[in-house]
Amino acid sequence: MAGNALSRAGVNVRIIDKRPSKVMAGQADGISPRTIEMLQSYGMADRLLEEGVQVHMLAFYNPRRDGKGVERTSRISDVNAPTARWQFEIALHQGAIESIFLEAMKKHGLEVERPYFPTALEISQDDAELNDPTSYPVKVTVQRVLETSNKANGDSQASHNGVQSNAFESNTVIQADDPEETEIIKAKFVIGGDGAHSWVRKQLGIKMEGETTQHVWGVVDLVPETDFPDVRHRTLIHSDAGSCMIIPREGDEVRLYIQLAEGLEHGAEGRLDRSKVGPEKVMAIAKEAVKPWKLEFPNPISWWTVYVIGQMVASRFSAHQRVFIAGDACHTHSPKAGQGMNASMNDTHNLSWKIAHVLRGWADLDILKTYEFERKKFAHDLIDFDKRLASMFSEKAISEDNLNGVVPEEFQDLLKSMGGLTSGIGIEYAPSLITDNTYQSFAPGLMIGHRVQPQIIIRVADCRAYEMQDLIISDTKWKLLFFVGDPKQEKQALVVKRLGEYMERPDSFLSKFSPKNSREAVFTMLIVSSTPKDDADYTDIHPGLLTHWSKAFTDDVSVDKKSGGHAYETYGVLTTTGAFAAVRPDGYVGYVSSLEGVVDGTVDKYFSRFMKEQS
Amino acid sequence: MAGNALSRAGVNVRIIDKRPSKVMAGQADGISPRTIEMLQSYGMADRLLEEGVQVHMLAFYNPRRDGKGVERTSRISDVNAPTARWQFEIALHQGAIESIFLEAMKKHGLEVERPYFPTALEISQDDAELNDPTSYPVKVTVQRVLETSNKANGDSQASHNGVQSNAFESNTVIQADDPEETEIIKAKFVIGGDGAHSWVRKQLGIKMEGETTQHVWGVVDLVPETDFPDVRHRTLIHSDAGSCMIIPREGDEVRLYIQLAEGLEHGAEGRLDRSKVGPEKVMAIAKEAVKPWKLEFPNPISWWTVYVIGQMVASRFSAHQRVFIAGDACHTHSPKAGQGMNASMNDTHNLSWKIAHVLRGWADLDILKTYEFERKKFAHDLIDFDKRLASMFSEKAISEDNLNGVVPEEFQDLLKSMGGLTSGIGIEYAPSLITDNTYQSFAPGLMIGHRVQPQIIIRVADCRAYEMQDLIISDTKWKLLFFVGDPKQEKQALVVKRLGEYMERPDSFLSKFSPKNSREAVFTMLIVSSTPKDDADYTDIHPGLLTHWSKAFTDDVSVDKKSGGHAYETYGVLTTTGAFAAVRPDGYVGYVSSLEGVVDGTVDKYFSRFMKEQS
Repeated sequence: MAGNALSRAGVNVRIIDKRPSKVMAGQADGISPRTIEMLQSYGMADRLLEEGVQVHMLAFYNPRRDGKGVERTSRISDVNAPTARWQFEIALHQGAIESIFLEAMKKHGLEVERPYFPTALEISQDDAELNDPTSYPVKVTVQRVLETSNKANGDSQASHNGVQSNAFESNTVIQADDPEETEIIKAKFVIGGDGAHSWVRKQLGIKMEGETTQHVWGVVDLVPETDFPDVRHRTLIHSDAGSCMIIPREGDEVRLYIQLAEGLEHGAEGRLDRSKVGPEKVMAIAKEAVKPWKLEFPNPISWWTVYVIGQMVASRFSAHQRVFIAGDACHTHSPKAGQGMNASMNDTHNLSWKIAHVLRGWADLDILKTYEFERKKFAHDLIDFDKRLASMFSEKAISEDNLNGVVPEEFQDLLKSMGGLTSGIGIEYAPSLITDNTYQSFAPGLMIGHRVQPQIIIRVADCRAYEMQDLIISDTKWKLLFFVGDPKQEKQALVVKRLGEYMERPDSFLSKFSPKNSREAVFTMLIVSSTPKDDADYTDIHPGLLTHWSKAFTDDVSVDKKSGGHAYETYGVLTTTGAFAAVRPDGYVGYVSSLEGVVDGTVDKYFSRFMKEQS
Repeated sequence: MAGNALSRAGVNVRIIDKRPSKVMAGQADGISPRTIEMLQSYGMADRLLEEGVQVHMLAFYNPRRDGKGVERTSRISDVNAPTARWQFEIALHQGAIESIFLEAMKKHGLEVERPYFPTALEISQDDAELNDPTSYPVKVTVQRVLETSNKANGDSQASHNGVQSNAFESNTVIQADDPEETEIIKAKFVIGGDGAHSWVRKQLGIKMEGETTQHVWGVVDLVPETDFPDVRHRTLIHSDAGSCMIIPREGDEVRLYIQLAEGLEHGAEGRLDRSKVGPEKVMAIAKEAVKPWKLEFPNPISWWTVYVIGQMVASRFSAHQRVFIAGDACHTHSPKAGQGMNASMNDTHNLSWKIAHVLRGWADLDILKTYEFERKKFAHDLIDFDKRLASMFSEKAISEDNLNGVVPEEFQDLLKSMGGLTSGIGIEYAPSLITDNTYQSFAPGLMIGHRVQPQIIIRVADCRAYEMQDLIISDTKWKLLFFVGDPKQEKQALVVKRLGEYMERPDSFLSKFSPKNSREAVFTMLIVSSTPKDDADYTDIHPGLLTHWSKAFTDDVSVDKKSGGHAYETYGVLTTTGAFAAVRPDGYVGYVSSLEGVVDGTVDKYFSRFMKEQS
């Protein structure tokens, strides 16, 4: 994610991976609605939507009163985030997702170097060097891996009929001792996206904080033979035989998740007891759990794993704002909420544009501090939720014999209430150097610290319908949204003219923070008027504001009447006064003001806090 | 189009083209809404939608009363076909469209052989041979082109500052006399898609019939400098200086169409007078026509052409149902309605599945006669419209001095009223061997002879929303739609069971007309129930009807509530009784009946008319 975002931005990136090849099957696979929106902003959602399985519904099964197995107690929407552009999750195996990234990166000239691993990480202690954005204060020594060893090799428990699994996978590698295979890389920035057992995190001496309770999870991917009707929905089953989660996978495949009651040798912090865990155990519990329906396994397993997981967050996400950790290196939690890959990809989506800004000399190094500030809070929220979910999932359902059991309605309500978090749609970045909610009232629907919610607007020149989110692409540029009302009205025509003239001035924030003769390098101006499309003319917008006919939009229904309309209402903007919004390069609203605030210097003050004047 | 459809169907195809390379720029470029639907059924619309310009609105300009140029009198939707899935036209240069086809064909192992041209065409006169679908009754002699000559070479009128044009392009080629470059191809079928001057048509002795009136058209593609506000809409301008049509093109380019008043040397049937036509003439008229707006041409021309066109239809479209002509070889008309490429592509879309059926021994040779029957009527309708449009377009607008001029409202009304024809959405194939409207009343919304109108339905197993049209793909299979009502109701459960049991019988039409052990080779069964999605289970459909979980759908709104619902209403089916429809492999409804008609042999009788029983 970081490599793709940064190489797309033209940054010179190297990716070192100790795996000899990309992941082929299994592993993380759930893509949340916000992650789809985010990947769409990089032009990467098409393949995801084409290849992935869509999970629309969540079905709940609980014990029947007559004791004869389970019954469906409800089906609800899997996503509970009304403004999500895509109201479903995508399931796609990690190999396919990696392949989408590898394809995208290749277009930007970046390929993963593997198998390589780091042996030393050194950060300069010189403050002057650390504070100079053009310096290379980090040294990483890397070695080519000649041979990998996996402790599980030769261990019959770790493979099932020869099927690949990463259960018990070791982090040990046999090092190359040929000095020619050693390289020292000098870097301006380093990001450790190296997983729950992060080597980078250890080098930085960063501790994981949180509960030490350990849970054992078993996962199996296969094509079952079944008459269970909800096998293509996400299904949560509380049965007397145990709890089971079913997730539909590509083709006719499904994934079975079981939280295993046992499996640790010496209490909660011990090692995996390999005699008690394995795919047969997972399949046996699942088979019992779906009764009275049939669940047979005549086909070979595609992939499986068993793993132990804690619920923890790293104490820091960075050292000197020069070395960062991201993803599982920062936060670990259960797979139940399907958040692993989503939280991780959104970490570096948040970080990448900030690094690009610093590298280009557009912004101060200080903006990098907002990475930990923004993403750590999210990680804590996620793990708090995970704890509540974990206990409700693993406990048995309430019954006459078990009055302390889980009440199905409460379990369902918990999932519903956390829809903003699990979908990623509700993520809110708190006020900081780059996020200021002082004038929120001019556009309450453009929630500061939130991503811009979807809205179809109509391009004036050709009446083509556009999704606002598709205009806010991840190109490292700020999007300046001007809601100018109806310029066919004399008053608004004057406002538009004044804005256009201001933007052309050499002392406007646009001129100050843009490189010379490159007025569109840092900011993209998008105009949203309120003139009905039948009357609107793009020629009504002053050229100081409208750099190309394609950037004038209006709030109206589409020509086919199927979409659009009510943009001002959605964003809470009055057509009589209009509003201005600065959307951060990651798609989150950074600032809102009146149109007056653009010309009177209010917006200038906001950008001056972290942007650097260009000469 | 034919090559792609047939090679996709696994037919052994060769394409001979005398052009040395694919078209690079200009030429035909308008894709109508029905053509987008049709290309989508081949999985080819994505690239078209991504690369093409969308034309949503049609603007009308007429003379101002004060005589000072023109003014906008109205803007209307460019497409007037309420059920069109895409309510806009696409403009994309022919080179890009050809490239989409070349890419698709390559996947099926087919490439264009060029430059090659045919020198002889011979059809067997032996009836037995002609009536044997396995015979090769056509012999085509082809030669490799060693050198092409273009009469316009060296003629300064034919190029403008060195820009390529096909104006005055000659059909003469210098033939290879090396016998090794000559090949005789024996074919089961031959299709001549070789344009208005079709060599194949001439070999078959087929005449063009219709008005001999000839019109001269001038076309220029360029990036103008203008403040004209409708330069990104399709715009029809009636000015005192002449009539002009503007079509937006890729990027900032526009196409200017002018019907030239003069240009023929010796009256209506003469040759082009090259001193009177050329891009300067087109640009000069356009510049005058848009006044008082500015229209300057500081940039080089991308492409231009001037051509003479008649309004004619071929007397026959085939010889012995073994050699066919298609596209401009069958019908020529003006470019105003943007129909050239659309009519042509839909010709062979209609023909290809019929040829595939005959080649596979699924259907009798007789079905091939429906090609001319269906497409000739359309060609005549199109040319009747073109004549009315042509006269209204070229005449001046009504004024005090010109009381016989065109009334703007009447011109607009003509275009609106012909929306079904120009969009392609209204195309209706009359009753024939393969199209029978006897029981239309069971599903009045599935209009027999029409394409199936768009409708979102919900897949039962995973609640994913699907466009019905995307289930009716161009895979040469018949789509059998079973609207079964709600199988959660006892009565409908029995109906579904009875249908399933019938389909499994060896004497069902499905068994009879499908190759042994290949029950899904010829027919795809799709089930549309009316059970609310929250309750529906795909396991409710009898396996004789439901061959895979992915083929059960229900009529409900989508989980995100944004689409779907009212499918039974759209198609006019009662949920209490249900209905059956047989959709032809080209997406047009061939037959409708009651569900009872499936099991009582009514549907069997329909298919027995043209399908062959498989052993």
